[in-house]
Amino acid sequence: MRRERVRDLLERVANGSLDIGNAINALSFDPIESLDFATIDHNRALRQGFPEVIYGAGKTPGQITEIAGRIAARGDGVLVTRLVPEAVPPLQALLPAIEVNAFARTAYLRGADAPSTGKGTVAVVTAGTSDLPVAEETVVTLNALGNCVARVTDVGVAGIHRVLARRDELSTASVVIVIAGMDGALASVVGGLVRAPVIAVPTSVGYGASFQGIAPLLTMLNSCAAGVTVVNIDNGFGAAVAASRITHGSG
Amino acid sequence: MRRERVRDLLERVANGSLDIGNAINALSFDPIESLDFATIDHNRALRQGFPEVIYGAGKTPGQITEIAGRIAARGDGVLVTRLVPEAVPPLQALLPAIEVNAFARTAYLRGADAPSTGKGTVAVVTAGTSDLPVAEETVVTLNALGNCVARVTDVGVAGIHRVLARRDELSTASVVIVIAGMDGALASVVGGLVRAPVIAVPTSVGYGASFQGIAPLLTMLNSCAAGVTVVNIDNGFGAAVAASRITHGSG
Amino acid sequence: MRRERVRDLLERVANGSLDIGNAINALSFDPIESLDFATIDHNRALRQGFPEVIYGAGKTPGQITEIAGRIAARGDGVLVTRLVPEAVPPLQALLPAIEVNAFARTAYLRGADAPSTGKGTVAVVTAGTSDLPVAEETVVTLNALGNCVARVTDVGVAGIHRVLARRDELSTASVVIVIAGMDGALASVVGGLVRAPVIAVPTSVGYGASFQGIAPLLTMLNSCAAGVTVVNIDNGFGAAVAASRITHGSG
Amino acid sequence: MRRERVRDLLERVANGSLDIGNAINALSFDPIESLDFATIDHNRALRQGFPEVIYGAGKTPGQITEIAGRIAARGDGVLVTRLVPEAVPPLQALLPAIEVNAFARTAYLRGADAPSTGKGTVAVVTAGTSDLPVAEETVVTLNALGNCVARVTDVGVAGIHRVLARRDELSTASVVIVIAGMDGALASVVGGLVRAPVIAVPTSVGYGASFQGIAPLLTMLNSCAAGVTVVNIDNGFGAAVAASRITHGSG
Amino acid sequence: MRRERVRDLLERVANGSLDIGNAINALSFDPIESLDFATIDHNRALRQGFPEVIYGAGKTPGQITEIAGRIAARGDGVLVTRLVPEAVPPLQALLPAIEVNAFARTAYLRGADAPSTGKGTVAVVTAGTSDLPVAEETVVTLNALGNCVARVTDVGVAGIHRVLARRDELSTASVVIVIAGMDGALASVVGGLVRAPVIAVPTSVGYGASFQGIAPLLTMLNSCAAGVTVVNIDNGFGAAVAASRITHGSG
Amino acid sequence: MRRERVRDLLERVANGSLDIGNAINALSFDPIESLDFATIDHNRALRQGFPEVIYGAGKTPGQITEIAGRIAARGDGVLVTRLVPEAVPPLQALLPAIEVNAFARTAYLRGADAPSTGKGTVAVVTAGTSDLPVAEETVVTLNALGNCVARVTDVGVAGIHRVLARRDELSTASVVIVIAGMDGALASVVGGLVRAPVIAVPTSVGYGASFQGIAPLLTMLNSCAAGVTVVNIDNGFGAAVAASRITHGSG
Amino acid sequence: MRRERVRDLLERVANGSLDIGNAINALSFDPIESLDFATIDHNRALRQGFPEVIYGAGKTPGQITEIAGRIAARGDGVLVTRLVPEAVPPLQALLPAIEVNAFARTAYLRGADAPSTGKGTVAVVTAGTSDLPVAEETVVTLNALGNCVARVTDVGVAGIHRVLARRDELSTASVVIVIAGMDGALASVVGGLVRAPVIAVPTSVGYGASFQGIAPLLTMLNSCAAGVTVVNIDNGFGAAVAASRITHGSG
Amino acid sequence: MRRERVRDLLERVANGSLDIGNAINALSFDPIESLDFATIDHNRALRQGFPEVIYGAGKTPGQITEIAGRIAARGDGVLVTRLVPEAVPPLQALLPAIEVNAFARTAYLRGADAPSTGKGTVAVVTAGTSDLPVAEETVVTLNALGNCVARVTDVGVAGIHRVLARRDELSTASVVIVIAGMDGALASVVGGLVRAPVIAVPTSVGYGASFQGIAPLLTMLNSCAAGVTVVNIDNGFGAAVAASRITHGSG
Repeated sequence: MRRERVRDLLERVANGSLDIGNAINALSFDPIESLDFATIDHNRALRQGFPEVIYGAGKTPGQITEIAGRIAARGDGVLVTRLVPEAVPPLQALLPAIEVNAFARTAYLRGADAPSTGKGTVAVVTAGTSDLPVAEETVVTLNALGNCVARVTDVGVAGIHRVLARRDELSTASVVIVIAGMDGALASVVGGLVRAPVIAVPTSVGYGASFQGIAPLLTMLNSCAAGVTVVNIDNGFGAAVAASRITHGSG
Repeated sequence: MRRERVRDLLERVANGSLDIGNAINALSFDPIESLDFATIDHNRALRQGFPEVIYGAGKTPGQITEIAGRIAARGDGVLVTRLVPEAVPPLQALLPAIEVNAFARTAYLRGADAPSTGKGTVAVVTAGTSDLPVAEETVVTLNALGNCVARVTDVGVAGIHRVLARRDELSTASVVIVIAGMDGALASVVGGLVRAPVIAVPTSVGYGASFQGIAPLLTMLNSCAAGVTVVNIDNGFGAAVAASRITHGSG
Repeated sequence: MRRERVRDLLERVANGSLDIGNAINALSFDPIESLDFATIDHNRALRQGFPEVIYGAGKTPGQITEIAGRIAARGDGVLVTRLVPEAVPPLQALLPAIEVNAFARTAYLRGADAPSTGKGTVAVVTAGTSDLPVAEETVVTLNALGNCVARVTDVGVAGIHRVLARRDELSTASVVIVIAGMDGALASVVGGLVRAPVIAVPTSVGYGASFQGIAPLLTMLNSCAAGVTVVNIDNGFGAAVAASRITHGSG
Repeated sequence: MRRERVRDLLERVANGSLDIGNAINALSFDPIESLDFATIDHNRALRQGFPEVIYGAGKTPGQITEIAGRIAARGDGVLVTRLVPEAVPPLQALLPAIEVNAFARTAYLRGADAPSTGKGTVAVVTAGTSDLPVAEETVVTLNALGNCVARVTDVGVAGIHRVLARRDELSTASVVIVIAGMDGALASVVGGLVRAPVIAVPTSVGYGASFQGIAPLLTMLNSCAAGVTVVNIDNGFGAAVAASRITHGSG
Repeated sequence: MRRERVRDLLERVANGSLDIGNAINALSFDPIESLDFATIDHNRALRQGFPEVIYGAGKTPGQITEIAGRIAARGDGVLVTRLVPEAVPPLQALLPAIEVNAFARTAYLRGADAPSTGKGTVAVVTAGTSDLPVAEETVVTLNALGNCVARVTDVGVAGIHRVLARRDELSTASVVIVIAGMDGALASVVGGLVRAPVIAVPTSVGYGASFQGIAPLLTMLNSCAAGVTVVNIDNGFGAAVAASRITHGSG
Repeated sequence: MRRERVRDLLERVANGSLDIGNAINALSFDPIESLDFATIDHNRALRQGFPEVIYGAGKTPGQITEIAGRIAARGDGVLVTRLVPEAVPPLQALLPAIEVNAFARTAYLRGADAPSTGKGTVAVVTAGTSDLPVAEETVVTLNALGNCVARVTDVGVAGIHRVLARRDELSTASVVIVIAGMDGALASVVGGLVRAPVIAVPTSVGYGASFQGIAPLLTMLNSCAAGVTVVNIDNGFGAAVAASRITHGSG
Repeated sequence: MRRERVRDLLERVANGSLDIGNAINALSFDPIESLDFATIDHNRALRQGFPEVIYGAGKTPGQITEIAGRIAARGDGVLVTRLVPEAVPPLQALLPAIEVNAFARTAYLRGADAPSTGKGTVAVVTAGTSDLPVAEETVVTLNALGNCVARVTDVGVAGIHRVLARRDELSTASVVIVIAGMDGALASVVGGLVRAPVIAVPTSVGYGASFQGIAPLLTMLNSCAAGVTVVNIDNGFGAAVAASRITHGSG
Repeated sequence: MRRERVRDLLERVANGSLDIGNAINALSFDPIESLDFATIDHNRALRQGFPEVIYGAGKTPGQITEIAGRIAARGDGVLVTRLVPEAVPPLQALLPAIEVNAFARTAYLRGADAPSTGKGTVAVVTAGTSDLPVAEETVVTLNALGNCVARVTDVGVAGIHRVLARRDELSTASVVIVIAGMDGALASVVGGLVRAPVIAVPTSVGYGASFQGIAPLLTMLNSCAAGVTVVNIDNGFGAAVAASRITHGSG
């Protein structure tokens, strides 16, 4: 249950528009719910500003669907990442309104309340077309968490004028997420162009010695532009959450 | 030259308190200054909010001292990291007011103007006493960039009550920097406790199979707490700059 | 042949309830039995307290079935791990009573005698739902070796209250097995909470830079909680045997 | 403060041999003591059965000495591992009775009460003479934690009769710790010979492609003898604590 | 063309049983034969004692078949390793007498002359049943090169008595090839038992941290038994050729 | 648009054979063209001497086809590498004249103008038949960029006479590209034989410990023949472009 | 002996200015000269265009000096790289005219004839001041091989305007050598800016996860700018030889 | 005690030249002798044809000297490898006749009996002068084990004619040991030239990406010349023992 929703409930109790019995019902869910195979952390939204997200890899379709159902039952928003195709039919059967994005491998169901809005815009920058699936996961997550997004696509450094031409868009963003495979060099160039926080996402795109993303991961960790931070390979979701922590924070 | 100082100059020209000739003198430095062995980027402060920092490793004492002198000559603040002991005497001879911190391996000289102040407090959390030299580099850099710092020391997860006891300090920080070697597990625990952005710094502390910091680096990249971002091994400086991008940003 | 069964035989000879001829027959199997493709160590149960377990990976269905048949022919219990689906039909054809667990990828047939009972309870703790297949292999093996099991599921450190809420169950266990992928941080937290031996099992669950389990493996080897020991990636079987060595030991 | 000492205090209060005022004094230390550079976990002995051990690497001599002094002030035993030579004089100046073992790189001061005695004997087995410094750290730690130790030295598998000749000693141990560098093969052989728990310690001894202990680490993690567990490279201390968890446990 | 066959031709010319014209025909093949996609080294048998062997991986069925045909056309023996199933039908269509071994992934056609016989017996020792496919490739190659083979199967060190029971067979071999995955420890034990040359073959069998054979490869390279040599992972063919160099040599 | 084509246009305007309106039309394409998923760098041919090449891996058939169409619409040549089979039908539907090479995984459509011709011949040398797919990608790319090619196939160092026999062809080449997997040793031998630039391409061909090309990559980076340079594993395309930079250069 | 010198000798014989006896003396050195510890390849200059260069690492001062003396005795130029300080005095004692460059760790003695001059200029570009020792080795080698050099220093991508400001110098070079540590991103940016061949040299400069140069090595191998080639870490010498092969070639 | 010496004793008893009492004395040493820090395997010479060799790394000078003394007391030969300089004086004090080779880091004392002579000659081939210390260890060991040695020095493949010029020496050897760092390519070339067994030793010589010998290790494991076997990095001793197993064998 999101922080906003709890506050709303309490205000409605305070002003008499909600009686105490119904408020208790709404709040009476146990913050931890134990299934046979999962311990759902229903308080996470309250504590962290976003509900528990379901990481689909390694879970059976049945497990994904049941966890999603429990979260939805509380009125919280549901986000599934790394969704395997087999899980889509049972998920849609249970939650017909859920939006499945096959390219991003996500499913998203809005909660009862809109997410609180983050400050400013998050720029999502990709080096090449092959990085787009990761970018899509990033954008879906950013939207689910209440952020405004601007895309800057296919501006890798082999043609440096492409990124320089988009300098204004980058300069006005609150946070910049740079997604790149192969040499990952775009993160350093962008890191040197903007004052805003830069979050780099290495992707597993490339020839042999990119080693499924180790090459851009190391490039980004070693960025000569100071203050670039890095998330795991192909982890567009993590970058989006990190950006949302910034746009929703007091910092 | 910091952005604030340029604005101040222009305002003083506008209100007549500075005549144009002197303003031109103050602004007339070339933004790129070429030495035989370095191309100093004097504009970086203007572009990025902090002046070019001198990375001491691999530079001779003479090179460090000459670059520091050129930056100081403009009235900008000077920060040297990874300072080798041999470079201290010539540096202090040229810039007697510079503050050398042997534990952090830094030297810092305040610029003509105070740095602009970041929003809120940055918490610097360490897992163990052996992580303190990296934390010290972080704190020196945060201070140089105008941030308010709170330290939370030696609260590794082997005694989980230690970090839980400091939960309030963590919850009120604008940004939390977690510094840990060995298993690096503290980053995940803190990442789950707070809503603020969390920046993790792996350190090269530990037994054989920490591999000079690879173990905590991987732990942090794989944090089960969503939205934790990571910088290079022992890179306290980088974490401080990343935090300062957030505290000085619009996000 | 288990140690208990040999003792039983000898006691029955001693009290006259078994004549010597039949006892000889029962004991007359050669302790090493050579097939074309395997040398079965029938004495292992006697020497180590558990019969030779069949590691299914890399063996043909025919080989698995023949080895299982030879072990069952002696009245010993049969345990197959990493069972490939193709081996299930011939195995069930030969040994109809064998219990196949597709989730754990195991097959188990009870021996003529119950296994000796281990002291206390073994807690099997998982960080996330995706770690459950490894946990299932652990539980099947623990049961086959005569252990009492308590499960603590999906209590990863991103919501630290989940594991703290289960502290009592952990504190009363004789041995705690912690199964975690991604950052593997749960092992350190649990290692700091309990006095009992802690055996950590890294799993191959996670994004790119978990490198199929290397990240949690290194985390666990570098645990800041002293005295945590580690087994191979996804090796729930090995952890169970290690725990059973403890619960059946004199230590 | 050890669990035994607390029980003793309470019993003396119960039977009138200690008045309440003095008991309160003895118990009144805050369980967490914060120095500038360390947060000492005085409760660890109570919670885990052994006091906080000081890992000397990366700490200054002054830090080591101050932490040791605080622990000794409570009457708890002090154990320092990875002790650098520079820290020995100040440590001995403060705590003259401390026993320094240069070969093991440890310092040990007995606490006010003897440690509780573990069940049985822990066998410490080494493959070669070059593994002895790690074994020495293991033995010092085992003794500090109240264990009885039997050494089996230089019985590497290149002369398999050496370890077979010591089979009886191995078979009667409660726990067996196997310390080996190079190929690390001894762990598998011992794991197949005994029923007791086997803890393997890889060492950084060997030619180039042992890669400072990675080779025996991998050997031990992949042991074909089921139920062998592993600790970090050269981590004799960790193996000793793991063994002591077993000998002091209910398992 | 094998060295023996050339000598035979020349002797038959010398004693008049072969006229010079036919001898010239038999010898007239160019020692290097260039196809579009291959440069066949027909002289290799003469120079090295075995004909060029066709490594099937990465070649199309058509390429494999054409090269095999060219070698067979000279009366030399043909050996294909790493044979993909698609190449079997065209190969058998062209060379109906070729013997395909699906388990070993080899195809072998005897040459016009028997291979010269190696001195003594080569023992092929495997640690587990899962190592048998590599052993089978070894045995097929050894036979093709004229060696006498003794198999010792499934004698891994977890039950050390299994290999000790076969000590006599090992002691009388001219060369011992040890094939093992997982911990690879068998190579060290055998290396310490016998005086003969020992060639170790790591296999890609095992749990996660065997890393497709890196673990046993490192074990074997670091063998504490002096004078064990190693070939590539799963390279049973290479071990066989190395052994045959010894059995056919003057050493 | 290639540099030659621009010059030609301008010359035709200068001599009156092209009126200004048509010239404007031909030149009026924006040098950067933004699709939803790609930012095409139409100026690359002008700047670098070859048009933007489409790297097919990780792109959908629709994306590949649309980018190819946009480039072809300008009269530039189209080259697609790492073409997945699913992309072939839509590509051929749109551009019927495109030449698909399934072995090389490329598609190539000639541009309106022939590419400018490089100086001399580029020798493409392979160690084994299994390296041919990479060589084919190299040759297709070299031809597309206007180079004359000589192939030297299957001359690996295990039969050193094979490469020595081709010494003349190697000595007269302007650039030599050496393509080898397994030990990659051919690059060093060729590097020592010729005076021309040598570009080495490691391939992912080989047994286990070639690690998908790491082994030959390291061999080539460590070549004892000075001045050998290296490209990524299996990157025949990159080697061809590097060679073409040389043959079209002023160096 | 260089190719030019041989031609000169022959021409002087042809035109009568050198009598045959002296010509024979000059040519009579054996092309391979065997010392106890070295086999000097005096023909290399003739075959490859540069004399055998002495790699100083791992050689004793005596060995270096003796080899240098033998090469100098023929009138060939002497170049020593990776010169250890202890070897300088004996080398200068034997060859007083040799130029020692401590920063580059080289020693160079001009030969009897000037080296043939390469076409155009080689640009040597560095990302940071810490990369200068490698650049210096590159420049000394380029000069020794007859090349004209232009330096572009400290233009790393964190301030992208620095390299863009030097675009003209880069565009007119025959070959560009890019030397960078940390993220190595400069190679990709330069590779996209120029048409000339680009040779990238990773350096071992940087924080922990640069892993002594692995990070920039991987970046450069994965460069998104096509046709960038790479040499070994810190191998400025190799890059210089590769460049010189191009400037002296027919390509 | 060597096999030859035991046979000699028994023959002297048989023919009456030695009385039984003295024979008993000579044979009465226990085959395993236990020191505090070592378990000496005096039977190894009998079992394996060479006495236990003392690996000096990681042992104290006192330990080395005491073990050497015990072996010498039996009349067996003593060989110490990886001898640290500090151990030389005490070793020479105890055993004045011992021959110390500082370059090879060995000490050798002949035993009472000459070692049995191996068949043929072992060729020790090095690629470069920097590989000589490893070669020296190899030669000392080969001589100690009774082998005849031929050296072929500095014949790396960058000048392929150097090794071709020594082809006759290589062809007549019983075993060829190839020692090379950097690219390690010499092993493949030699492996293709000779029929004899080839043992390859990678050395830790080279630039950054040789990774202290990993590069040539991988090259040699992946040799395209079939039947090359490999020992550990810099392990000249191991190669010598492997060769001696061949020259003393029945194969």
